[in-house]
Amino acid sequence: MAALKPFSGPAQASLLGRKERLDAPHAALVNGISSHVLDYDDTHLRTIIHPAGPVASALLAWAEHSPVSGPEFMNALVLGCEVECRMGNAVFPEHYAMGWHITGSTGVFGAAAAMGRLLRLDEQRMAWALGLAASQPVGLKVQFGSDTKSFHPGRAAQNGMVSALLAQQGFTASEVAIEGFDGWGQALSTRHDWSQVTDGLGQHYELALNTYKPFACGIVSHPAIDAAIQLRNAHGLQPDAIQAIDLRVHPLVLNLMGKTDPHAGLEGKFSIYHAVAVAVVTGRAGEQAFTDRAVADPAVVAVRRRVTATTDPAVKADQVDTTIVLTDGRKLHRFIEHAVGSQDRPMTDAQLEDKFTGLSEEILPRDQTRRLMDLCWEVWDLQDVGEIGRAGAAA
Amino acid sequence: MAALKPFSGPAQASLLGRKERLDAPHAALVNGISSHVLDYDDTHLRTIIHPAGPVASALLAWAEHSPVSGPEFMNALVLGCEVECRMGNAVFPEHYAMGWHITGSTGVFGAAAAMGRLLRLDEQRMAWALGLAASQPVGLKVQFGSDTKSFHPGRAAQNGMVSALLAQQGFTASEVAIEGFDGWGQALSTRHDWSQVTDGLGQHYELALNTYKPFACGIVSHPAIDAAIQLRNAHGLQPDAIQAIDLRVHPLVLNLMGKTDPHAGLEGKFSIYHAVAVAVVTGRAGEQAFTDRAVADPAVVAVRRRVTATTDPAVKADQVDTTIVLTDGRKLHRFIEHAVGSQDRPMTDAQLEDKFTGLSEEILPRDQTRRLMDLCWEVWDLQDVGEIGRAGAAA
Repeated sequence: MAALKPFSGPAQASLLGRKERLDAPHAALVNGISSHVLDYDDTHLRTIIHPAGPVASALLAWAEHSPVSGPEFMNALVLGCEVECRMGNAVFPEHYAMGWHITGSTGVFGAAAAMGRLLRLDEQRMAWALGLAASQPVGLKVQFGSDTKSFHPGRAAQNGMVSALLAQQGFTASEVAIEGFDGWGQALSTRHDWSQVTDGLGQHYELALNTYKPFACGIVSHPAIDAAIQLRNAHGLQPDAIQAIDLRVHPLVLNLMGKTDPHAGLEGKFSIYHAVAVAVVTGRAGEQAFTDRAVADPAVVAVRRRVTATTDPAVKADQVDTTIVLTDGRKLHRFIEHAVGSQDRPMTDAQLEDKFTGLSEEILPRDQTRRLMDLCWEVWDLQDVGEIGRAGAAA
Repeated sequence: MAALKPFSGPAQASLLGRKERLDAPHAALVNGISSHVLDYDDTHLRTIIHPAGPVASALLAWAEHSPVSGPEFMNALVLGCEVECRMGNAVFPEHYAMGWHITGSTGVFGAAAAMGRLLRLDEQRMAWALGLAASQPVGLKVQFGSDTKSFHPGRAAQNGMVSALLAQQGFTASEVAIEGFDGWGQALSTRHDWSQVTDGLGQHYELALNTYKPFACGIVSHPAIDAAIQLRNAHGLQPDAIQAIDLRVHPLVLNLMGKTDPHAGLEGKFSIYHAVAVAVVTGRAGEQAFTDRAVADPAVVAVRRRVTATTDPAVKADQVDTTIVLTDGRKLHRFIEHAVGSQDRPMTDAQLEDKFTGLSEEILPRDQTRRLMDLCWEVWDLQDVGEIGRAGAAA
């Protein structure tokens, strides 16, 4: 905000969770950055694209500047995600292997298409908008671990919006910017299969393959967290009633999450022991479960020291075999076939609400969070989607 | 302007040749677009980079927002062009062959480095600024022929400025974003020789290889235009005294500029016959020589019909052999060894002023143009380079 606010135009749009208002393209940028900061956003598993960030950030900002109805918003959102994921399908994995952070490099097309839809661009202008987007790819994987990783979906949202606005006014671009000689496909990928973009358009939807991440840590630990929460809730488990938690896990789990004694919250994200302990103690494993305070919580630490994990090649990546031994000698057992959040077992609406509430609880008052979620569930009936952005701003 | 102005921040900087004022990043964008619209900008011949557009557009806009002295400005300008051209040297021609419009894709580094200098970024923050720039390359060659070609240097200027501003506030990026695994070099070129970036830094200057284009049409015609103007001026030639103009030219000339009967100004840019005729009639071949009116001017058309050209493989690309036959029977002859504007025969200061005046004459009053040029010549002595931007704005 310190870098950008001095250059912002009129206060056209809200920032989720903040008080400041910025011009619509800047709001798209900042909300797009926010969408990815926690690495906790939605995922199109086939391409590892996080579809909503670049697209929704542009649309929400625009909806506060210029009236957009619920059906118009949803139509543009679905179109944008579809364009983005299909562009990804056309060049994945070669494009990704070259170094591109695919959420940024394809996100700009999604944002441009979605914004073009809201602006009701004709075919010619929509082609120019996508052409302008092609000249502005964002994001390299080398940035992983720095703030710039999150900058990618934000800048993609902003670039897509500006592309559509320029095209609307007749600013021209190549009509073969994606597939033509010296175009995007040639420069940004060693392979392209454009049939992935066009085949079955309007018949099957890549967005239907989008998934949500239920827990704020490495996905390989999700089956074990899932089992821990299920057993806790089914048996009303109290921490001091637990003598041991024994896990049989996929071999990658200890590679990626083998840290036994985490001290900082970020280290907790790489500890299967902490992840399972905090899940069984609190019943949750959202962002609040991986703070410095959470990993030092005596109740959690006590349980963590009773967690053991053994790897078994027979256990699949979305499976776990969990046994909890109680101090009274009873053994509780749970085998997870598909972890929650996987394509086979998507999160329920209640779980999505729980995730959202966990993220917003230190930022927005509880009743505002409730109203914001209600507006999202009712989006199809909204006359003015700008209500969502305004309801998401801090007071 | 219709697309961008509604989103602009405070009126921080002027637009060259226009009345509106925009926030500094938007002014950098618009002035960068303007720099390239006529394809008449400076050229680093080794890489075909147009160095000044992305760098100077950012610096001029910034100098109006925050005071910059002449020496600070020149230091940043030279640094920015150096970074940009050296990045180009490291990846040319493979990067260009992949499809990248190199002025945009390397220009963002030039603008980031130059802005980082003005903001006095420390080493850490300068590395972040360049890292952020690496994630925002602009420009594909497929856009040639559309408005988006000119968008590239503008967006590069804006992206570079924003990168430096974010880095200044501590927004982090990879410190190996250019050369690292999954970085810019890997994703954007099949070859990279980073010694081209670092060798002899501060000892030899790529900017010293920058050239200016004297005439507003294809460079292969420049020797013939040069000869025509020289003969006209040396002999006080009047159009009706000319019976024939015979050219012996490099073989590419008729390939690229063989149009015999142009009707639109743009067609005139692809006619060696028009280019030579307008040069001999008016003594100039700037942008005004290639308007619809100029190609229809009866005096020019009359001379054009008396121009013949024959190709000769012995004539080099920057040479021409010209004979003008007068109605009184005299023959005037001129062989051009190196055309004006080539590295061997750079434009003189007077020729640069003439080019500039030709471009500004329908936009700024004559005395304002004079003052603007004087400010540019005196840049080293200016306390406040913002004067240049303000002097370049339309009243």
